[in-house]
This record gives sequence, C-alpha cells and structure tokens, in this order.
Amino acid sequence: MSLTFSTSRRVEFAETDMAGVMHFANYFRWMEEVEHEMFRSIGLSVLQPDGERTISWPRIKVACEYRGPLRFEDEVEVRLTVQKVGSKSITYHAVFEHDGQRRADGEVTMVCCEMRDGQFRSIDIPAEMRKRFEGS
Amino acid sequence: MSLTFSTSRRVEFAETDMAGVMHFANYFRWMEEVEHEMFRSIGLSVLQPDGERTISWPRIKVACEYRGPLRFEDEVEVRLTVQKVGSKSITYHAVFEHDGQRRADGEVTMVCCEMRDGQFRSIDIPAEMRKRFEGS
Amino acid sequence: MSLTFSTSRRVEFAETDMAGVMHFANYFRWMEEVEHEMFRSIGLSVLQPDGERTISWPRIKVACEYRGPLRFEDEVEVRLTVQKVGSKSITYHAVFEHDGQRRADGEVTMVCCEMRDGQFRSIDIPAEMRKRFEGS
Amino acid sequence: MSLTFSTSRRVEFAETDMAGVMHFANYFRWMEEVEHEMFRSIGLSVLQPDGERTISWPRIKVACEYRGPLRFEDEVEVRLTVQKVGSKSITYHAVFEHDGQRRADGEVTMVCCEMRDGQFRSIDIPAEMRKRFEGS
Repeated sequence: MSLTFSTSRRVEFAETDMAGVMHFANYFRWMEEVEHEMFRSIGLSVLQPDGERTISWPRIKVACEYRGPLRFEDEVEVRLTVQKVGSKSITYHAVFEHDGQRRADGEVTMVCCEMRDGQFRSIDIPAEMRKRFEGS
Repeated sequence: MSLTFSTSRRVEFAETDMAGVMHFANYFRWMEEVEHEMFRSIGLSVLQPDGERTISWPRIKVACEYRGPLRFEDEVEVRLTVQKVGSKSITYHAVFEHDGQRRADGEVTMVCCEMRDGQFRSIDIPAEMRKRFEGS
Repeated sequence: MSLTFSTSRRVEFAETDMAGVMHFANYFRWMEEVEHEMFRSIGLSVLQPDGERTISWPRIKVACEYRGPLRFEDEVEVRLTVQKVGSKSITYHAVFEHDGQRRADGEVTMVCCEMRDGQFRSIDIPAEMRKRFEGS
Repeated sequence: MSLTFSTSRRVEFAETDMAGVMHFANYFRWMEEVEHEMFRSIGLSVLQPDGERTISWPRIKVACEYRGPLRFEDEVEVRLTVQKVGSKSITYHAVFEHDGQRRADGEVTMVCCEMRDGQFRSIDIPAEMRKRFEGS
C-alpha cells in the first residue's frame, strides 16, 4: 500500500511573477513543504536527530510538468503519493489540482543520508522509517 | 550548430538552507536567469513586445539531477546548450560545474506563446527568432 | 477601534539559511501573506478589480526588528494591528511570537493606488474600503 | 572615512510579481548580496572562521523606503555606505538607483556574533575587522 498525503494551499502574491502566474520554481518549494507535512504526519522530520548524527533527505532528481497556470489566491490541492521505497532512496509523485483540473505533475527522488559536520553520506533507510513510508 | 551560452555566478547566502548547501529549487532560478542572459546575447528578451501582443516562453517541463552540493560563495559555471528547436518549443540542457566537477544537470522545455490580457496561447516560433536560436 | 488579524504558521525548510534560522527577508513575505489574509477576512483582495481599473497597495516603507531567531518547524503566531488609516495610506504593525516570546516586530506602510496599464497612481482610499480597515 | 561599496545588477524575472515590478522583499536580498561583496572586497566573509568558532553578522534591524518601481531587466546601481561602526554592531545605508533616479533607500544594522553549535552570542567586533570596516 502506498503512503499518500494531500493538503490544500493558496497561491501567494510573492509567488507570482510579472506574467501573472505562479513562478515555475515555486512548485518545487510547494512539493517540499507538503512532503515535510507528510513526514510529520507519520511522526518523522526531514531532519531526524539520531544519536550524534542527523538523518536527512537531499534530493537527487526532481522534475515537473506544467499543464496550466496557477494564479494569485487560487486554492490548490497538492497530493503526494510515495511511488517507490528503495534501499536508500524514496520517489514520490505530486499532483497539483485547481478547480477540478490537473495543473501540474511533479516527481522527486530523495536519498537517505546521515549528516555529520556538514557532510552527507548515503545510508540504508533505517527499518523503522521504512515501515512508515511503506504505509504499513 | 547548437546555440550555447555560459556564465559564472556565486552562491548567495539567501540561496542556502539549514543543511548548509544551495537549496535545490534555486537551481531552477539560476537556469532561468542564465537563459534570459542567453536571450539577451542574441538580441531578444524572454518577454518580446511584438505589436499588440507580447511573445513569452512559459515552461512546460523541467528537471534537474543533483550530483554534489554547492555551498556559500562557491563560484559555479553554468553552461546552457539548446538541444532542440521544435515548431513551437525549445529544449535546452544546463550543466553546473564547480572546481572542475559537474554538480548538477538540468533540462528545460519552454513553449512559444503570445500573451494577451493575461492569457497564453502557443504559437509557431517566428522565423526570425528561430534563426537566432538555431545559431545560424 | 483597530482592525487586528492573527494567524499561525510554521517555518519551512526553504525559508532557513545556512545559519540554521529563518532568513531575515522572509519575515517580509510572511507579513505580506498575513496582510492578504486580513484583506480576505474583511471581504477584500489586495488586488481589487474596480471597473476598468484595479486597486492595489504598493508598499512605501517597511521595517523589521529581530529579537531572537526562528528555526525550522517552529510554530509562530503572527499578529497584525492596523495602526493608522490615512487619506491615502495604511500603516500596520506585526508581532512574531514563538513559545510565548516575541521574536520580531515589523511595520509596513502601503499606499492605495489604481493600476492601469502597469502604471501606479496614488488615490484616496475609497470610503467603503476605509470603513472596513477602521474596523467599523 | 566611511567604507563604501557599489555594484550594478539587473532585475531578474523571478524577482518580479504580478504587479509587474520587483517584489519589495527582494530589495533586502539585494542589500545582503551587495553587503557580502563588500565583505569580500575587504578580505572578509560574512561567515568568518576564527579557530573553533565562526564569526557571523545576524541582522537586528532593517528598513527600506520605496520611491519608484524597478522592472524586469532594469539595470540598477546599488551603493552601500557604512554609517556607524559601534562596539558590537555595524549600520549601513543602501541606495538603489536606476536611470539616474533614486528608487529606494535601505538601512541595515547587524551585530557581530560568534556562532557555536547553532547558537549566536554577540561579541565585540575584533580589532582587525573593525579597521577594515572603518576604511582605515
């Protein structure tokens, strides 16, 4: 069973550009913010202290396809679905909907890392975390 | 012959996040800024007035792969290469290099549109513009 | 009686910088976002169509004092109080609180303008709008 | 004698908003970026390693007055002047000019701090740094 998480948010003024629509790079900030809500919904943080180290999730591959614009004050549903829980990485898909229409699709692959002294090293996803992402 | 354009820039403090590295969404802002320099280098603007309409280039598909972090004050070379000039769209590839190492690869597909009254409509790339992007 | 509005929000990862705290410029984005919620709470938008023109509110003076940092995932109460409704401008004060402690104070003065064809012209605040900001 | 530093930069697309002008919060990012260039121009970094600690400069008070808009691709001169070097803090003024006209004035007060383990503690500005900011 796949873990899913959805929330709704509104396009803010500072997120628009002079073309009158949400700037394309902001979709990535939205995906990350909803992802972090998803982490919290399963009792985790994207920065999880674990003894002397911190477990974090740098992105290694991201993409977005835009199907139609989002405008100031639009209410948008963002729905994440975890697609793959690998040994060291997780991939999720995001759908942006407004007014019953799909406006964008995104995809993010992030890798489980331990951070020590500002350096990242990829590690196997700890079993306890894996269970939560597998929705079991 | 492919149009290419390269420039170098420095990672700013506000572009970093608490993990101590450039936030992943900022790579997209960088690509767009270098792209706009590329437009200027061939005598165009990404917002080109053309009689009563304005020709613009909304993105329809973007992606980025991250190979290693960029940190505050790193000097980074960003090199764009136009890969495909279609009838209505252009795709370019971006390479981010620091210290002789490739740190990220990006790709952007944007579609030629006329903007009138806040609405976008895709159009064939005008012949005069096409020539410039084909580097001929 | 002064119009007040308060809401709470959480510090997002992309809002932090490598010092591990919310970047100082983001407080201004927060103030604007809460202000726009305040507009909506009294039935207005910061971009109010009014016949052929649009009424908007560019900022002419803003300030912020920082008393203590905000960190990732902190929940923060932001409370706006309209301090002065002049003939053409409005000034409000903002307080940022976390854990019962005041972390920052901001102030924004914005001027009522009509926008036509991308130009701004300051105007007297329409009577109907004024009433709502005066909380009467 | 006051330390001054000036540079010119261009308004980027992502820095505009749907009103067609540079978003007001971005002036603060610009001031910080020019400030960091000023640090480098006197052989310092805003994050200066100093043995086991790092010396940094969190902002405690910032302000900006807007006199006229900046638009996409405008070239803007930003000029910083250090106004006061106190025992623990520095205040500078910023002027934004385009087309020979002053478009905005900013002011930033930042305090010298040592950072250890994510905590900030204000300290006297080290004598060697002080000299450089006093332009002597």
